[in-house]
This record gives sequence, C-alpha cells and structure tokens, in this order.
Amino acid sequence: MTRILVLYATDYGATRAMAEAVLEGAASVEGVVALLRSAEEVTAEDMISSDGIVFGSPVHMGSMDWRVKKAIDAVCSGLWMRDALVGKVGAVFVTGGGFGGAGGGVELTMLAMLANLAELGMLIVTLPKNAPGYQNGGLHWGPYMRTGDEAGNPAGVNPESLELARHHGANVARVAQRHAG
Amino acid sequence: MTRILVLYATDYGATRAMAEAVLEGAASVEGVVALLRSAEEVTAEDMISSDGIVFGSPVHMGSMDWRVKKAIDAVCSGLWMRDALVGKVGAVFVTGGGFGGAGGGVELTMLAMLANLAELGMLIVTLPKNAPGYQNGGLHWGPYMRTGDEAGNPAGVNPESLELARHHGANVARVAQRHAG
Amino acid sequence: MTRILVLYATDYGATRAMAEAVLEGAASVEGVVALLRSAEEVTAEDMISSDGIVFGSPVHMGSMDWRVKKAIDAVCSGLWMRDALVGKVGAVFVTGGGFGGAGGGVELTMLAMLANLAELGMLIVTLPKNAPGYQNGGLHWGPYMRTGDEAGNPAGVNPESLELARHHGANVARVAQRHAG
Amino acid sequence: MTRILVLYATDYGATRAMAEAVLEGAASVEGVVALLRSAEEVTAEDMISSDGIVFGSPVHMGSMDWRVKKAIDAVCSGLWMRDALVGKVGAVFVTGGGFGGAGGGVELTMLAMLANLAELGMLIVTLPKNAPGYQNGGLHWGPYMRTGDEAGNPAGVNPESLELARHHGANVARVAQRHAG
Repeated sequence: MTRILVLYATDYGATRAMAEAVLEGAASVEGVVALLRSAEEVTAEDMISSDGIVFGSPVHMGSMDWRVKKAIDAVCSGLWMRDALVGKVGAVFVTGGGFGGAGGGVELTMLAMLANLAELGMLIVTLPKNAPGYQNGGLHWGPYMRTGDEAGNPAGVNPESLELARHHGANVARVAQRHAG
Repeated sequence: MTRILVLYATDYGATRAMAEAVLEGAASVEGVVALLRSAEEVTAEDMISSDGIVFGSPVHMGSMDWRVKKAIDAVCSGLWMRDALVGKVGAVFVTGGGFGGAGGGVELTMLAMLANLAELGMLIVTLPKNAPGYQNGGLHWGPYMRTGDEAGNPAGVNPESLELARHHGANVARVAQRHAG
Repeated sequence: MTRILVLYATDYGATRAMAEAVLEGAASVEGVVALLRSAEEVTAEDMISSDGIVFGSPVHMGSMDWRVKKAIDAVCSGLWMRDALVGKVGAVFVTGGGFGGAGGGVELTMLAMLANLAELGMLIVTLPKNAPGYQNGGLHWGPYMRTGDEAGNPAGVNPESLELARHHGANVARVAQRHAG
Repeated sequence: MTRILVLYATDYGATRAMAEAVLEGAASVEGVVALLRSAEEVTAEDMISSDGIVFGSPVHMGSMDWRVKKAIDAVCSGLWMRDALVGKVGAVFVTGGGFGGAGGGVELTMLAMLANLAELGMLIVTLPKNAPGYQNGGLHWGPYMRTGDEAGNPAGVNPESLELARHHGANVARVAQRHAG
C-alpha cells in the first residue's frame, strides 16, 4: 500500500478544495491510500508513514501562509535533522487572490514549499504542460487556482484548477508507488 | 540631467513595445533623457553613463532570454568587478507567451534580472499595486505583458500592460533623479 | 527626522545581534531614529510611522521563520490593501546554521521577505560587494551571518557579519533620508 | 539500458570537472550509460534519447552562464512544445567564484535550471543532507563547488564537492533507472 499525505492551510475554503482534489486524484490510483491533514494538526508520524507528501498554501504577500510555515518549522526541522524523509516523493499546489495578472507571487510561494521538500531530500514531481486544465491554472511547479477576478473580488472555485489538482495528485501517487516499490 | 537606459531583447516585437513604453514614461519626466538599447548593442559605457537602468526580457523556459544573459555576462560582470554601478537605480519588466494561467515563470525571470542589479549594488524600484494597469499585467517586481491567450496563441500587444510600463518608467526616472540629486 | 524600523525573530540570539547591528548602523546616521521590534510585538503603526523597514530572520528549512511570516500575514496584508507603505525604503538580512557550504537557503529566504517589501511597493536597498565584511557574510540581497560551522555545530556570533549589518543599516537610513526628503 | 546526459558550460575547467564527476557517478551504476555534452554541442536528439538529464553551470552575476541558457532556448523550447521530455528525470549542479560567504547566487542559478526541467515536466532529484561531502558543497537543490577563496582568488578544484557530485550522479542514475523501468 502506497500512502500519500496532503497538507494544507485554508482561509475561505479554496485551498481546502484544492487539497481535496489532490487527495481524490491520489486515492483514485489503485493501491494508494490518501490522508488529508491541516497544517495545524499534521504530525511527524503522518509524514514518516507516508510515501509521498503534497503541501498546499494560499499565497499571502508573495509567500506561503504562516500556518504552513509553522508546521514546517515545528515538524519538518526535526525530521531533517534525522534524515527521516530522504527519498520520499513530494509536490506542491497554491491558491491566490488574483490581483494583477501575473500570478501575484505563486512561483516563490511554490518554491519556498519545494525548498522544504528538497531540504528533506525528497524527489519532486513537477506539472507537465499537457496535464488537463493546465491552460487555466498551470505552473510548471504545480497546480494553481486563482480565486479572485482582476479587481481582486472573490471568483469562487475554478473547476479546471480542481481537475488539474486531481491529475497532479494521481501523478504524485503513481510516482510514489513506483519509487517506493 | 538624469539618464535612464532601457535594455531589452525581443522575439516578435512585444518586449520591444514594452521597452519603448518604459522609455516613453522615463522621458516624460522633466530633466530626464532616456536611451533604448538592444541586448546585442548595449555597452559598458551606456551603463556607466546612466543613473537608472531597466532590463526587459521575454520569458523562455521560465527564465530570461539568452541574449539578455549574454549582455549581463559580457558587460555587467566587468562592471561588478570594478564596483562601477553601485548606488544606481534599477528595475525590470518581462513579457510571456501566456500558456497556463499563472505567469509561466515571470517571477523567477524577473528575479534573475534583479539579481544582476543587486550584484551591481543598485537600488531596486518595485511596482506598487495602485499603479494604473496593475490589474492586468502587474507583478510586484515589475510590469508584465502576456502576449498569448490561454491556449498559447498570439494575443497581440496589451494596452494596459503598456500603460503600466510607462508608469514604471516614469517612476524609475523620478527615483533616479532624487537619488542622483 | 527619518525613522527606521528593524523587525526580527530570533532563536538563540544571533538574529537579534544582527538586528541590533542594523539598528546601530541606522542610528549612526545624523537625523535618524531607529526602532527595534520583534516579529511578535510589531504593529501596523510601527510600520506606517517609519520611512525605512528592515526585516531579519533565521533560515529554517530554506525559508523564513514562521513568526516573521505571521507578522507579514497579520500586519502587512492589511497595509498592502490600503497601499499604506508605497514608496518607503526596505531591506533584509538573515542568519543560518551553516550546514552545507552554499548558504543553506539564504537566497530564497531573503527573496521571500523582499517579496513582501515589493508587494508593499517599497524601494529595495541591496548590498554592494565593496561593503566592509562582504567577503565573510555578503550576499547581494543583504547581509548574512553563518552561525554554525561545517558540521552544523554552533559557531557563535561573527564580528564581520555584524560589521556588514551595521553598514547595511546605515545605508538603508541614508537612502530613506534622501528618498523621504 | 538507462541513459544519463550531463550538459555543462565551463570557464576555467571547474564546471567541467564537476560535470565529469556527475558522469562518473552515473556510469558507476550497473546498467547505466552516461554521455557528456557541452552546452554548445548538445542536440535535441541527445535529450530525447536520455532517461535522465543533469544541467551544470558556473554562476555569473547570480544566474546561469549564457551558453547554458542559449542551449535551453534553442533546444529545450522546441521539446517543451512537443512534450517530448515529460516524465524523464532531471537534476542540476553549479560552481561559483566564492566572493561573499553566502553562495553568491547559487540558489537562483540552480532554480533557473530547475525551472527548465520543470517546464519540461521532469521529475527532480534533490540532494539529501546525508550525502558524502554535503558539509562542504551541499545545497538542497544540488551540489555546489566554490572555486574561489573569500577574497575571490582562484581556489582550485575541491575534492569534497567532486565526491558530492559523483554521489549525485549515481543517485540520478538510480532514480532514472527505477522510474524508466
């Protein structure tokens, strides 16, 4: 059995919706069980017992939500010391408010979460441009959902980004399966 | 007299259009002269004689065009050795094809050009979110023009991004003026 | 009177020592008052009343300390909404444990804090390579103090990095003074 | 047979020495053949016929050498259009002159090369901190060799960084083998 952990923080539910879509995608792969944890509740044991870990966060001021960072500082630092997650598989996704038409800092936000995965010695799953939904919410580092319109008003949940997140979750699960096998 | 240099590479003309808009904005400030140079023709003397320098590039594979990088390696490296541009003012802008809805690597592209400005010891002018046109092509590191639609087809030149570029050029010129004063 | 705010989080005191050195450097410039605030205690009013703001953090897992991020999410997000800090001057510094000989993530850590400053529309002061102490703890984005040896053991506080931090603080103060003038 | 391609540009031979070490490490894995190509000579066919690709570059002004970027623009852009490298395995390494004690831009340099690998939809192999030689030249994104001393004078080739590069090459080969299997 291959185990995938999806870890997130959410403000108004959009990042949780993306996390659930990643989870669904992972669980759709035969032989995979997937676990959803908020940044507040995730434990070292959740990470150690997983073959693949996906981190998700809203973008705030061009970087990840402080709750995700707190989980990294509190839980991942100790696992880094012990080389406890070396060789596992990792990936990321983000959501953002949508002001400005250039992602508003999605790339550095993803990279900061990927830096944590790299510090832990994990294999990183990127997002190929031929993934379904990429045209709407794709960045090469992972899926993105824009949750606001151009003026920054709430735009609801975008089904194409959710499809992309499901695809990403399934892909992470398949890589983890092959890699752990 | 305050001097602003705008340096760019272009594929199909969009980055050149953005460069011209930055130039126009800079030249609109009283007491400022602005100079346009392609990455192929720019010289060390062009940089030394300027108070502010703006770098622009298309995004290719998530980073700057190789011609802009060649100009940096060939011209800026020597100026770095001699601390020749310390204290000048700098800024950046980019254009991108538009595939995927998350900027396609604009942020790291801008940051690589900003890294060059930082190595040279320059003051960096960022892009405030209340700048006109920000909703369409704004990123906090500088103006962006998306030149393709969601499917990656050419989308022409976007007037709102040009307005934003003009605003940025004028802002860079004003900062350079005050700073050189 | 030009006002400089230095904001930090610290684990064992090294980042606080760097913060105090930046503060000292800023306060050494005539006509400047400098204020030190931990990430836990800083307020929106502290930021609004300052002409220049310097953020400092330890590097944890390749990105900033969660307490600094919490201050950004809690305090800066609201100021971004209101464009309250546009045109102010900003800078950063970091400390790191020293395992691995390549900075251990100092660059992305600095860039995440700089992203916040850029979102706020601030002018960014970089670190010229001719600054005193640069050879030991210089990165173009700001001063760095390595607090551990190659094996990751505590290495104490490095006087050259403190000198560099003082220099940076003075430079930020001078830019803020000219820019606010 | 699993095929690994190592692609590099070099100034004075240090990056070539690192490339050869990565190559050696890859070739030491049973069932793996490894190919060395300079950025000037590499072809699309070299990439298509490989299971894993490792990019190496000197750091110049905080980003990759223009020759590496030219290879990416000229060769990888077309492969991206055709989704020709999706699912392959990738990694990076860099060398740097050593002025300043904080890596001088190694992280963004690695990330720009990794961005290319991510755009191509490749799996990214990071560098675990328990790799031999990590203390001297390790960064979580890949191996680094510092080629200058604190004052920026040439420091020769560092055997610990070469050991780390060999380890990384072997690790990339093993992941590619399992992943292609």
